[in-house]
Formats: sequence, structure tokens, C-alpha cells
Amino acid sequence: MPADRLTRVQAQLRPLGLDALLISTPPNIRYLTGMAASTGLMVVGVDACLLIVDFRYATVAREVTAGSAIEVHVSDGSVDAAAAVILRGPGISRIGVEGDHLSVARFNTLGMAIAGPGSERVSAASPELVSTARIVERLREIKDAAEVEILREAGRRISAVARHAREWIRPGVTEMEVAAAVDAAMRRAGFERPAFETIVASGSNGALPHARPTRRTLAEGEGVVLDFGGVYDGYCVDLTRTLHLGPMPADFRRMFDAVREAQAAAIRRVVPGVGPADIDRAAREVLEAHGFGEAFGHGTGHGLGLEVHESPRITQLAPAGEPVTEGMVFTIEPGAYVPGIGGVRIEDDVLVVRGGCELLTDVPIEL
Amino acid sequence: MPADRLTRVQAQLRPLGLDALLISTPPNIRYLTGMAASTGLMVVGVDACLLIVDFRYATVAREVTAGSAIEVHVSDGSVDAAAAVILRGPGISRIGVEGDHLSVARFNTLGMAIAGPGSERVSAASPELVSTARIVERLREIKDAAEVEILREAGRRISAVARHAREWIRPGVTEMEVAAAVDAAMRRAGFERPAFETIVASGSNGALPHARPTRRTLAEGEGVVLDFGGVYDGYCVDLTRTLHLGPMPADFRRMFDAVREAQAAAIRRVVPGVGPADIDRAAREVLEAHGFGEAFGHGTGHGLGLEVHESPRITQLAPAGEPVTEGMVFTIEPGAYVPGIGGVRIEDDVLVVRGGCELLTDVPIEL
Repeated sequence: MPADRLTRVQAQLRPLGLDALLISTPPNIRYLTGMAASTGLMVVGVDACLLIVDFRYATVAREVTAGSAIEVHVSDGSVDAAAAVILRGPGISRIGVEGDHLSVARFNTLGMAIAGPGSERVSAASPELVSTARIVERLREIKDAAEVEILREAGRRISAVARHAREWIRPGVTEMEVAAAVDAAMRRAGFERPAFETIVASGSNGALPHARPTRRTLAEGEGVVLDFGGVYDGYCVDLTRTLHLGPMPADFRRMFDAVREAQAAAIRRVVPGVGPADIDRAAREVLEAHGFGEAFGHGTGHGLGLEVHESPRITQLAPAGEPVTEGMVFTIEPGAYVPGIGGVRIEDDVLVVRGGCELLTDVPIEL
Repeated sequence: MPADRLTRVQAQLRPLGLDALLISTPPNIRYLTGMAASTGLMVVGVDACLLIVDFRYATVAREVTAGSAIEVHVSDGSVDAAAAVILRGPGISRIGVEGDHLSVARFNTLGMAIAGPGSERVSAASPELVSTARIVERLREIKDAAEVEILREAGRRISAVARHAREWIRPGVTEMEVAAAVDAAMRRAGFERPAFETIVASGSNGALPHARPTRRTLAEGEGVVLDFGGVYDGYCVDLTRTLHLGPMPADFRRMFDAVREAQAAAIRRVVPGVGPADIDRAAREVLEAHGFGEAFGHGTGHGLGLEVHESPRITQLAPAGEPVTEGMVFTIEPGAYVPGIGGVRIEDDVLVVRGGCELLTDVPIEL
């Protein structure tokens, strides 16, 4: 891992009044160490860093951190108990935790464990645990050159898979069969795994934005929303196309064209310095103008990286004052869902570059 | 969903001194409502129950709760904000949350939101949020008749997949190719998706209990640990076999036979009333007797259900006084991992029945 990721976390400790930061979220640990594990805990101090793992990850942890400033500690019991012993040392009075991810129960037991054995409750002299927000997540928003290369390659590969969609989406097959074909094609294309459960929503199911594939059989004359994503070298890409089996009836065509226009408007709006809410508004205004404002009930996009949903969120509620910047990667995926007609969603992945954005995915809108 | 699931939760509120319980964990919501969604929040009162969802899940939520005592509320903004308004009512002073899952940040913002708009901090008059543990999880430990039938069927299906392992595991193919073949076979066998990332750990990788499949090519003369699971009708099963390409060398055979004996000993130990730690010890003692005590660094098993890792945990650290009981379903999967030789793990799924256990999986130990 590039060493500056860790040093940029360490540089934030003193300004936040922290003596140490506990990093417990797996993708954040992966970002800083390269270790992909479901457990593990990092103790980041101002000038030292410990990665605590249990037996199962000892070998991997030592491999990925070899030659780095990160020291590996293999715990006998829980990683939290091991961290507590270390954090009981002198000079540590405020310890940050990742409040968006750490559970209330784990926060309480960690506080107790740091206070020391035998203590029934945390005393005034014990180090204080402090909830922090998005310290590592904000770094992760801006992709470095190596990450951009992986995401570009992943975008090319998922696009190549999508161009075969018509081979799988045809009358007589079930949604689950289509999903299985898509997942198998992603594997063949070099993806480690699907980034989420592939969505194949046909006919009336298309009106459910988050439908799971069912045993429903596809039929001529209906729309099909295909939304799938893959993990390539740890990084997620995500793509949606809406197909129609046979010519689109007029009402479906109206919805399709509105979503297509909304997506194009949102993509045109992406440029460093613009707010996520402005990008969302660009899509929303087009859909409203076509009478589909009510039919678009979700946000316009989400960040992509080690997680398939990460910041920035491209929604109406995105905070002003946090504009998109060069190096961010996110989806643009407006949709419209009308019970009785079905649904349309069109999704591509963009990288924010100087003066605009680069499309990471490249598939005809109308497959 | 069987209505008694909800009433059994409601019956626990008064004894715990709670006026309401917020259920935020997706598998717990699924268990109580039948809705499989990534978001949503239940407000369970002593004699009423609300399921709060956003736009995306409105249709599904209404469908699954039709005819039940659960009322659906579709929120404009966040489900937490909608819950806060509801919980501000009179007569509500202690509200339980799921402390093992709710994040510290969400706990804090919920507390603030319930205190009411404009309040900078939670006042003494505000309802109190209280961390609770395992209220729904404990119910989920004991499978009812419908769940048992699903798990039995899933066990039969995953066993049928495993019996083909020799077709995929052969010299010249990569670990990732084997994983793809296994995942495709699970789909064909009717599984919705893999329950976790399929593990194919060959040769030296076998010594890593949680290896991810790599581009490493399998070769004659080495062991391969294949650990895979599937989700069938929402429920998870999990199976591991260790194969050897060509005759096992003496040191590998010693390890294999020790793990096989350990697994059999643990399975024999399963009977209602015995502690999970005793089951773990049965496996551990066999491995220690063969000199592999140090090589077995994980627990013996974990519960199976809507999640692939749920309680009971079959480990040394399992609390005494919580014996296994009829209707529990869990894995028995001891292993041994020796750098330089490789690894062996053997895993089956058991259902605790009167007088012992029923094996849900049925595959020759030595494939």
C-alpha cells in the first residue's frame, strides 16, 4: 500500500485531539494495509501503527505489511481485548473509534476493557472513547493512480459483459437463470465475484427498484432491468441497462427516453467543484419535466471503490460544501418506476477529471 | 411469517423494562416480517408493531406483511427520522436498540432525533435508548418446522454439488476456476447465491484457513481445501471437504485422519443439553492427542440460518449455561493448518434432535 495513506490518517489525529484511532471497518483496514479480512483491528497512533489480527490472518497480515511502518500483533483472544491492553498505556487519554461502523455493544465493551480488569464501569481517569466520522472514508473518495487504473480496467470488463446481455435476456428464461448467466460471465471476465446480488427485474417486477431475481419467466413484450456489478482486484464497478423484449410500447418508450435524457443531463453536470446534489438535481429536473418526478424515488448515484456503495452519495440530501473533485468515481443511475408499466434504470460509472468526467463504462444505452 | 415470532419478541419487552424495541438488523427484520431488504426499521411495542421502509421497499413491505399484525409506514426521509417522530409519543421512556449491530453514530443521532427538533442534546426528560443483546437472535437459534425443512433441502442440495468436486478439482486449473465452477453448480442446484466467497485453497494456501481463491494452478501431489456455502430460500448451509490430488503423503494423511477423527468425535458429542464448549473440546482433544492442537486455531462451528455465521458459536469461549437444544442447526468443522504441509478442514451441518443430532449434509469424507 502507498505509505502516504497511513501518514494522512496519522496527520489528522492531533487536530482532532486524539491520541490514537481504532480502525475496525474491514474496507478501511484493507485500504491502509492491503489486507482483505473480515476481522482485525488497527491501532493508529501519531507515529506508530499496529495491526491486530487473530491466528487465522497472521500469515496474510505479515505478508501484506512486510516493509511497511505497520507492526503486526497476533492476539490470543479477541482483537479488541488485545487493543485494550495496548491502549491502557500512559499518555493515551482520547481514543477515536469509527462511529459509523462500530456497534454500541462493542463500543461499551471496549470502553470497559480499556478501563482495566475488574472495573465495573469506565472511571473518569480512563481513556475516553470518542466517536469519529469518515476519517478514512474521505481519503478513499479520491482514487489514486493505481486505483484509477484498476477501475478503468474493471469498467472495460463489465462493459464487455453487458454487451452480451441480449444473449441471456430472451423470452422463456427465468430471472434467476439470467442472473446466473450474468454472474458466470463476470467470473469468466476476470471478476472475483459479483459486487452485489445481480438484479434481473422483468415486467411488473421492474417497478421494484431493488427486486431480487425470481423464478418468473421472461415474456415477449415486457421490459427487463438488468443491474449488476463485479469486484475486480478488490474494486467494484456497477452497471444497469434496461432492455425490452420486442418493440417498446409508447408509454414504456416515453419512460425510457426520459431516463436516458436524465442520465445524460446528470453526466454532463459532473465537473470538479459541483455539488453532488446539483448532479442529482440535473437528473431529477429532466424526469420531473417529463412527468416522472414521483416515479424516481432514489438517489442518482453512489461512490465506487473497495465498497460498492461508498461516498460520495449523489443525492438531494448530499451536504453542500462538499463538491465532487478530481479522482472521485461514482455511478450515475436515474430511474423511473411505474406500477403497471414497469421500470427503467440506466447506470454508468464516471471518474471525475479536470473539466468534466470520464466514462468508465461503455455500452450502448439501448441494447 | 408465523405470528408467534413477533409475539415472542413483544413478550420480552416488559420484563426488560422496555416500552419499545427498535429492530434495525436486516436478518432480524426478515425473520419477523419476511422482508429481505438492506434497510428498514421495526418499532416493536408491547401490542403494536410498525415496519418503516423507504420508497424502494414500500411494495414488498406491504406484500409480505399483508394480513399480519405489522403495520407498514413509508418514510419520506430516513427511516430513523420517521421512527424518532413516532417514539416521541407519551408513555415511551425506555427504548431498546440492538446494541450488537446499531452503530455508535446512529445511536447518537437517533437519541438526538427522539429528543426532538432543536434539541442540542438528549435531556433528562427524553426517552432513553438502551442497548439490548440478542433478543431476536436467540429466537432465531431454534429453527421451527418450516425452517428445518428448508435447511434439510438445502443440505441435500449442497451435498449433491459437493459430490461433483473431483470433476472441478484437478491438476492444471486455477483456484479461481474451481471456485467459479462450484458457484455455477450451486446456482444450477437452485441456490440463490453463494453464502460467502467460495474458498479453494491449494497446496501451501491450504494452511491459510480463510484463503481467497487465487490464480494459483492446482498441481498433482497437493491438497485442496474446498469450503463453500449456498443460500436456499433465504437459509444458509456450509460444507467443506479436503481433497488430495494423487495419493496422500504420510504427513498429510496423518493430519487428514486426525481432523476426520476430531470431526466425528465432535458430532458424536452433539446432544440436547451439552454445552457448545464441550462440543468444541471433543474435537480439540482429538487434535491435541495427535499433536495438532496448535494447528487448530479456530472454533469448531457456528450456527446456520438466515445468516451463515450466527449463534450458537461452537467454540472454547462459548458461555457455560447455554447448552445446545433441539432445533439448533450449526456446522462442525475442525481443521489443522501446518505451514509447509498445508491444511485440512472437514465440515458438515447438523440439526440437534432428541437424543443426538441429524446430519443435514451427506458427502463421503474422502472424496
